[in-house]
Amino acid sequence: METFAESLDTPSVVIDVDVVHANIRRFQTYADVHGFKVRPHIKTHKLPLIADMQIAAGAIGITCQKVSEAEAMVAGSSLITDVLITYNIVGAQKLARLAALARKVRLSVVADSAAVVDGLSAAFAGEASPLGVLVECDTGANRCGVASPEDAAALARTIAASPGLVFGGLMTYPPAGGEAAVQRFMTKAKALIEAAGLAIPVISSGGTPTMMHAAEAPVVSEYRPGTYVYNDRSLVMRGACGWEDCALSVLTTVVSVPTANRAVIDAGTKTLTSDLLGLAGYGHVLGRDDLAIDQLSEEHGRIVSTGPIGLRVGDRLRIVPNHACVVTNMVDEVHLIEAGRPEPRKVPVAARGRIR
Amino acid sequence: METFAESLDTPSVVIDVDVVHANIRRFQTYADVHGFKVRPHIKTHKLPLIADMQIAAGAIGITCQKVSEAEAMVAGSSLITDVLITYNIVGAQKLARLAALARKVRLSVVADSAAVVDGLSAAFAGEASPLGVLVECDTGANRCGVASPEDAAALARTIAASPGLVFGGLMTYPPAGGEAAVQRFMTKAKALIEAAGLAIPVISSGGTPTMMHAAEAPVVSEYRPGTYVYNDRSLVMRGACGWEDCALSVLTTVVSVPTANRAVIDAGTKTLTSDLLGLAGYGHVLGRDDLAIDQLSEEHGRIVSTGPIGLRVGDRLRIVPNHACVVTNMVDEVHLIEAGRPEPRKVPVAARGRIR
Repeated sequence: METFAESLDTPSVVIDVDVVHANIRRFQTYADVHGFKVRPHIKTHKLPLIADMQIAAGAIGITCQKVSEAEAMVAGSSLITDVLITYNIVGAQKLARLAALARKVRLSVVADSAAVVDGLSAAFAGEASPLGVLVECDTGANRCGVASPEDAAALARTIAASPGLVFGGLMTYPPAGGEAAVQRFMTKAKALIEAAGLAIPVISSGGTPTMMHAAEAPVVSEYRPGTYVYNDRSLVMRGACGWEDCALSVLTTVVSVPTANRAVIDAGTKTLTSDLLGLAGYGHVLGRDDLAIDQLSEEHGRIVSTGPIGLRVGDRLRIVPNHACVVTNMVDEVHLIEAGRPEPRKVPVAARGRIR
Repeated sequence: METFAESLDTPSVVIDVDVVHANIRRFQTYADVHGFKVRPHIKTHKLPLIADMQIAAGAIGITCQKVSEAEAMVAGSSLITDVLITYNIVGAQKLARLAALARKVRLSVVADSAAVVDGLSAAFAGEASPLGVLVECDTGANRCGVASPEDAAALARTIAASPGLVFGGLMTYPPAGGEAAVQRFMTKAKALIEAAGLAIPVISSGGTPTMMHAAEAPVVSEYRPGTYVYNDRSLVMRGACGWEDCALSVLTTVVSVPTANRAVIDAGTKTLTSDLLGLAGYGHVLGRDDLAIDQLSEEHGRIVSTGPIGLRVGDRLRIVPNHACVVTNMVDEVHLIEAGRPEPRKVPVAARGRIR
């Protein structure tokens, strides 16, 4: 612990590249064995360099949530040639940028209403190549998505009949443990759509928590895991991985030990965020199972213990956050460590803050 | 609503400058009447331009939480000449930057332990001008701070005896409604320190929620409000202000209306953050008291209603977030609107992401 990334000031977000490689390999192997494709969601790392590692390992492309994320990723990579934006793109400014991006890479998006499809069609009717549009399906997460296989089939026909667009398939972000619901919804939607004479190029699902159960919904042909590349406390607490599989940690310094069982570190919500994901506490102190991070303010993290806390001002602690994806959005750069490289390598988080 | 900042893409963080002016004036007037100084915390806006407005209105300087915030604010302003960093500065890299900054402006910091004082003294012993160090006192918030007036007096003597440092006074961030506790702690600490022959240049307290009760702790000579400049949903729900006093809102677009009582906007935790501050829901939709933002993911905000939701894809909504300070940390720029200026003015958030 004491020799960990000594040259870094704190707080700093540190990424263990060797763990990243292992995490990527593990799921790619599972997908290869079960015969589906991997299209990782870049929201977790936001780094072209790691997207390239995922593609080199076998991923067919990437998933982004916003046009601006996709722009940043494509600009920073030579391996990204295929991007799916799993978001309803609405509004003239975003549609113009989408059309410009579609001239550079193979691009597809999703839609869950005729209003979204109409906007996409108007933007792409004059383009040389049509835009692939997948129907987003609500398989139980109750966020976006058409509500029934019948609605999915109807919207697929609308897309296929719209100038500038081609029907790209079906997409869902399922509820945790929703493989059976995905299988049921997608099987029915597929039958309806094929009966209407349309081919379904892809059926795409996602989510790290139950990704090792992806094969339980064999109708799915493509999977979009995000967090698996770094893992985090929420996944450890769900039993999806161990602390040794967590590639991202936040290096912090103890700045105050005001009482025998309280300490304060220099990372608060501006680094660790307020995301609880159903957990108690705001992160795990590596190597100190006896400590709890029970309260955060913007720049302070409060650590408490039942016994004597055993910390001194200046001690450095590594924290595994509850949610890795949101932490990489808080910092302008992360620091990569790797076996055999003595010094961390600073990398800008290219797609940080890309909210449009 | 429909004519609000039409040229902006969404999500965008919009600041109403006229409301900012009124908010600054209201508290400065209260402070002037009651005879204490104002030293606003810049964590809310992170903008040199608004710090300058606060100073022009009568503030004696600014408060920052981290050295890097102070660096960014000083670099962007010609009016900031006095900075208090209300944080234990620990570690060689930060201490070197602190010393460099102290050569540019009148700078002071806080400490709550001899370990922190020793580090500061080592860094400033060779400097031409000594560093002012205030003792941070825990008046009930249970974060940082010495635990008793006796400990405060002892640390004041340690500071006064340390090469390169001068004793700068007492500082606290009180618990909500803690004026009586502040008055009690500080009165006793003041008596002990003065009995030891030390003068107390300032007694500094802070916090927006009960700032209009600051005069109930008359021992306090300086107040550090932060959120008051923008206000937010948490302050409206506490009864501290009304929606019309909220200067910051997030302009969003409805991207999906999947069911009769559910809609999704294009702002999630990457804009509004997960901060709940004890509230239910993640923000207030201006003009639509009947709606609740009941769930956020990174790029989706879910809005629900009990009756028909009355929203269509493409509608724009303005959201007052639970916590303004954390929202300005999520975006690279904010957009200022002002009576008489037809177009919003884009301003980079100079001190965003300054976590060190």
